[in-house]
Amino acid sequence: MPERGIRICIIGTEVTNGFIQDTNTKFFAEELYSRGLILKECRVIPDDPEIIFDTWNEYIRSGDLIINSGGLGPTDDDLTVDLISQLLGVEPVYDEEAEKRVKWFFKKRARSGVSLELALRQARIPAMTIGLKNTVGLAPGIWAPRINMIALPGFPVEIKSIWPEALKIIETQDLTRRSTRILPVWAMGESQLFSQIPRSNDVEIGVHALPIGCRLFLRAKNEDGNLTELDRIENEIRLHFTSLISHDPLRDIIEKLLADAKTLSTAESCTGGLIGKLITDIPGSSAWYQGGAITYSNSSKSQLLNVKEETIQRFGAVSHATAAEMAIGALAAFNSDIAVSTTGIAGPDGGSDEKPVGTAFAAIADKNSQKVYTAKLYYPFGRERFRLAVAHSLFLGLFQRFTLFDKNPQDWQTDRFGKNFVWDDFSTFQ
Amino acid sequence: MPERGIRICIIGTEVTNGFIQDTNTKFFAEELYSRGLILKECRVIPDDPEIIFDTWNEYIRSGDLIINSGGLGPTDDDLTVDLISQLLGVEPVYDEEAEKRVKWFFKKRARSGVSLELALRQARIPAMTIGLKNTVGLAPGIWAPRINMIALPGFPVEIKSIWPEALKIIETQDLTRRSTRILPVWAMGESQLFSQIPRSNDVEIGVHALPIGCRLFLRAKNEDGNLTELDRIENEIRLHFTSLISHDPLRDIIEKLLADAKTLSTAESCTGGLIGKLITDIPGSSAWYQGGAITYSNSSKSQLLNVKEETIQRFGAVSHATAAEMAIGALAAFNSDIAVSTTGIAGPDGGSDEKPVGTAFAAIADKNSQKVYTAKLYYPFGRERFRLAVAHSLFLGLFQRFTLFDKNPQDWQTDRFGKNFVWDDFSTFQ
Repeated sequence: MPERGIRICIIGTEVTNGFIQDTNTKFFAEELYSRGLILKECRVIPDDPEIIFDTWNEYIRSGDLIINSGGLGPTDDDLTVDLISQLLGVEPVYDEEAEKRVKWFFKKRARSGVSLELALRQARIPAMTIGLKNTVGLAPGIWAPRINMIALPGFPVEIKSIWPEALKIIETQDLTRRSTRILPVWAMGESQLFSQIPRSNDVEIGVHALPIGCRLFLRAKNEDGNLTELDRIENEIRLHFTSLISHDPLRDIIEKLLADAKTLSTAESCTGGLIGKLITDIPGSSAWYQGGAITYSNSSKSQLLNVKEETIQRFGAVSHATAAEMAIGALAAFNSDIAVSTTGIAGPDGGSDEKPVGTAFAAIADKNSQKVYTAKLYYPFGRERFRLAVAHSLFLGLFQRFTLFDKNPQDWQTDRFGKNFVWDDFSTFQ
Repeated sequence: MPERGIRICIIGTEVTNGFIQDTNTKFFAEELYSRGLILKECRVIPDDPEIIFDTWNEYIRSGDLIINSGGLGPTDDDLTVDLISQLLGVEPVYDEEAEKRVKWFFKKRARSGVSLELALRQARIPAMTIGLKNTVGLAPGIWAPRINMIALPGFPVEIKSIWPEALKIIETQDLTRRSTRILPVWAMGESQLFSQIPRSNDVEIGVHALPIGCRLFLRAKNEDGNLTELDRIENEIRLHFTSLISHDPLRDIIEKLLADAKTLSTAESCTGGLIGKLITDIPGSSAWYQGGAITYSNSSKSQLLNVKEETIQRFGAVSHATAAEMAIGALAAFNSDIAVSTTGIAGPDGGSDEKPVGTAFAAIADKNSQKVYTAKLYYPFGRERFRLAVAHSLFLGLFQRFTLFDKNPQDWQTDRFGKNFVWDDFSTFQ
């Protein structure tokens, strides 16, 4: 039997003109892959009725399920409802629920210059189709079974709000499925990881980069399962890389900080605010994040974090010792339970033979145990990737130190880490 | 005459499986649009020879220029060279320059397990085609005139390194061209801007969002120029929005800081390190950026930045007064010439009737004039957009204050700003 998969059509002149970055393709591709479904192709086309029809007709002939995104807005160049109606030989009708929603919305926020009629255009769906509830925007999604098409808006937040409804329809379809597993393995390079993972003739393996480390994708080669093989390989990997597997180390740390009612502060040199930014991206971080110092200059390291001038002179601003004093200084300056620090050479200038561009030192200071742990890191991958890798190394270090090895601090030293990622028990301070 | 445009094909199972975000489509689309070229469609397909052939054959029949990306690596599933050869009925040959490069590279960094033969696969191009120099990776681009195809690698950095060569070929092609102008207008909403820009029957107008403000896209409707109309509209817009037009306010500020040998520091509450991160994204920023304080808690505002406890009690942590004292405090703590600060409510919690989620205050302190300028901002767009908008408002404020109105500080107050964006001359400090 041939594979029955999915074809995606993204409609939007704003994408083909390069005004915006399309992120919907990746959203759909990830969602489908994680459910074992096969994405056969994705086309991005302008709001041009001729090109839209050509694409849809070709897709319909393939027999695959079609997901269309875009063209459901209120303006003249939003053509999706009218074109589907034409294909089906029907007229548009109002979706009852969407009509109510538009009227309610219009009453609440009537704007001069926008007529109710124009707004109601978004409540239309073709006859012979089913509306899919949009909880964010006004236009409902559309399920047109006679042409195997799910039509969704273009805005990512609206797609996400309708997606559960779309998934219900996908569940009813006779589509090829091959089971998958996705495992994030931190602090391991692609080739390093590849040489250590078990193989199987029945399982496809894909590896793709994280800021430090990889996501490992496992997929059964045939539709009829091979679940035992998938499970066997997943279990082997989980045992082998226990301390490196986490879907999101930062989230795991936060849970632990909240559970223990502990607080965190940061002292950043080479990451220049990136770590604070990643932490405060998370709503509610003010409950456990006290703040941080971005100490780019040596004098600010001394003035704000009490790093000794002789430490910088003797070991350099980029050193185990300076990183350690920065973290200890942040504990005091912000009165937090845990503090982290980074200092390094992001480049392109500033490297030396001994400390080339890409070298960094990170530290974690713990008020409770009065210990500071430091690590030398080396990520010569260009400024942007370097900074992300340093930030995520710290999150991984925190995850391992405070969530995995809480009760057994000696495991900390004996566990396996990637060779770029050795944490030392630097010293007891005070 | 029908329009002759460009069709793009992105080959990569890593994209159709959702492992990576494709950014090449946007790169190509922007490059083509800015040159007045027409992108007709873009297809993303897996490394599957049947699907690749179907797509290419359809594209070749269209007569448009084809840009293909991906499939030029050394492994078995990299098919582009062999498939083009098949289409042309020729054999692959070595591109002379690429062959030299691979051999040189191989000698320098021979790795166990990688044979020279495998590496040399990347130096192949089909006979009857021209190699395009890749200065970053090993595989050259390919220009196959008989099928109107430019084939490029999949890695964005390699595409960018070959792109100038590809542009030379594009220049030789008989393609439809419609002149364009792109103008970034900051601190203006889409509808606000739309109501104020001049119109013309001969010019298409597109508006797309910046973190605060819009990029305005103007394109002649017909191939034969309308350059006079384009110029007229561009000039009108430049006159009307003088202080709001800059391709990148932060870059303009940096030039000015370097020219004046001045330094900057930051004090961030609601932006939590984002401003420091955006500044230190820029190589060489250590020359003029002293550092910053991320003062998420009230106590850290007082301890690090010397914000008076009574100020926070009387006006609140989110107020003109606290923002001003934070910026003044940063001037002192980091001994910089200029300091900026932010304090606000990023949400989802923490808002009140008086200061709803999305409210922020920003300040700019200038050591030289001993003045501090503050602004009340309101961006109720969700946490992420709020933080970006606050950061970019500050950059725009700095740009206006220190590059546009340097000699005429009174212009500062009288110039037109978006209604969300009024800077007050708060006080003279000390």
